[in-house]
Amino acid sequence: MSKYVFGVDVGGTTVKLGLFDIEGNLLDKWEIPTRPENGGEGILPDVAESIKKKMEEKDVLKKDIVGVGLGAPGPIDAEGTVYGAVNLGWGTFSIRDTLSELLDMPVKAGNDANVAALGEMWKGGGQGCRNLVAVTLGTGVGGGIIVNGEMLTGAVGAGGEIGHMHVEDNETERCGCGNTGCLEEYASATGVVRLAKRKLESCGDPSVLRDIPETELSAKTVFDAVKDGDGLAIKIAEQFGEYLGKGLGTIASIINPEIIVIGGGVSKAGKILFEYISPYFYKTVFKGCGNVKFALATLGNDAGIYGAAKLVLE
Amino acid sequence: MSKYVFGVDVGGTTVKLGLFDIEGNLLDKWEIPTRPENGGEGILPDVAESIKKKMEEKDVLKKDIVGVGLGAPGPIDAEGTVYGAVNLGWGTFSIRDTLSELLDMPVKAGNDANVAALGEMWKGGGQGCRNLVAVTLGTGVGGGIIVNGEMLTGAVGAGGEIGHMHVEDNETERCGCGNTGCLEEYASATGVVRLAKRKLESCGDPSVLRDIPETELSAKTVFDAVKDGDGLAIKIAEQFGEYLGKGLGTIASIINPEIIVIGGGVSKAGKILFEYISPYFYKTVFKGCGNVKFALATLGNDAGIYGAAKLVLE
Repeated sequence: MSKYVFGVDVGGTTVKLGLFDIEGNLLDKWEIPTRPENGGEGILPDVAESIKKKMEEKDVLKKDIVGVGLGAPGPIDAEGTVYGAVNLGWGTFSIRDTLSELLDMPVKAGNDANVAALGEMWKGGGQGCRNLVAVTLGTGVGGGIIVNGEMLTGAVGAGGEIGHMHVEDNETERCGCGNTGCLEEYASATGVVRLAKRKLESCGDPSVLRDIPETELSAKTVFDAVKDGDGLAIKIAEQFGEYLGKGLGTIASIINPEIIVIGGGVSKAGKILFEYISPYFYKTVFKGCGNVKFALATLGNDAGIYGAAKLVLE
Repeated sequence: MSKYVFGVDVGGTTVKLGLFDIEGNLLDKWEIPTRPENGGEGILPDVAESIKKKMEEKDVLKKDIVGVGLGAPGPIDAEGTVYGAVNLGWGTFSIRDTLSELLDMPVKAGNDANVAALGEMWKGGGQGCRNLVAVTLGTGVGGGIIVNGEMLTGAVGAGGEIGHMHVEDNETERCGCGNTGCLEEYASATGVVRLAKRKLESCGDPSVLRDIPETELSAKTVFDAVKDGDGLAIKIAEQFGEYLGKGLGTIASIINPEIIVIGGGVSKAGKILFEYISPYFYKTVFKGCGNVKFALATLGNDAGIYGAAKLVLE
């Protein structure tokens, strides 16, 4: 008899859901809107309803479902308690108990970035590894750490928040978190734009980036210019690579991972990123932890549902 | 019927052994010399012999022993394989299988710093916590990380090597590991002396430290002077606190521990250390990970045997 598992990835605007067999084959995926109003009280009932509907549609019986895994944007501890998720309107409560009661099924929950890291380990860029760091270079810098096959959740579910490690003493602009000099201020998509604007101002070199209206500067335009050999863009990539390479070197010296998987919008620049990250990584990482592979994430927006499904199968 | 466990801490000159009940009461402890000659081939047979002798002496039967835990100075993975331990003459082999065969008992093994961290969690400064960072400020800076009650071993047993995280770009002197700018170069006992010598040279302030022959400068003389209000010594403590506070802030942002336990020779200065570490820690740590307690290690040189015993009871 086949067994199934559901993976759920709750985002600020949509909830992604996936039906998997226990080998990790994605049999179906779909989305429903996220309703954050009234403290997000409708979100988990909507998820439960959608899962029940899919079970009917697919003729899947409850006895054949191993459980439901869920990732959400907030600190979530190993017991499935969320400690506030601003984008969803959520305060502190047990996701596990609430959803488990609605569905009468086993439920596990984790922070979305940690869950996505688990997904990349299971079926993405980190397959075959059990000690992995996943970095998502998007609007911010997200991170997930897998230690011996399990998510590093931490004391209150804030483990793997590598975007907010302190990497620069001389920063004056504040990060969204309230501190100054966080990795996110230089290695995210908006961070690359910040580095670009500063370099365009401080350095007189000619550059194709000067022809682009400031509002249209993006990580993509910068790395496209790097690929075209634009000298100033290359200087920006060097700065980006120094911050991220040293930051990842520090993480690797502490965690000793086998692989670092890089995803998110900035990673669409491709393997050229590694050319700028690697020199600083290998220069600073503890030699005993230096045998690390770099890979690009492969699951894209599906990493969350894959990881959520895997969470239940552990 | 009572059950027992042995904890073994292999050092470069002596092997410490402890007999515990499974509640963690230390019933007996003793030492034997470490014999690193001939590739350290005699070390584990000596340990086995000593355990057998103790069992006879105490009338403890094999059926009442849960197992033997062992910590040793080198990278040791979760399966108990050591990847070379220079001080012991060891190459790569399975400590678990070798000692288990000699004793016909279950054996577990881990890196000595990670094992000591487990000991401090179980019966020392970190009791009641399940997410802990232990820092040993001795000749070098050692570290052990406990995640959800288990040692963070890493891919090849080098997890928790926080002494070699890169914290200073402008360093020219090499660390023992071959890199420059490692935390160990500033926060270890020898690191404090390095900071002191540099400050005595670069700063003209009067100081009691100037009356001490350079060969007798130590972390203790520096922190004794700090306690006496010596201005220059306080500047040295500030530098020490900045490196260590920021370094621990970075670790906490990544790991999200409940507690940081500080031990080793430098920690004998006592709680005054926290006065210099805390401001830099709280300034740089990610706020979501900032709810961290600081404590002094309490088990001293016994942390290793306690942790080794706990390793078997997990």
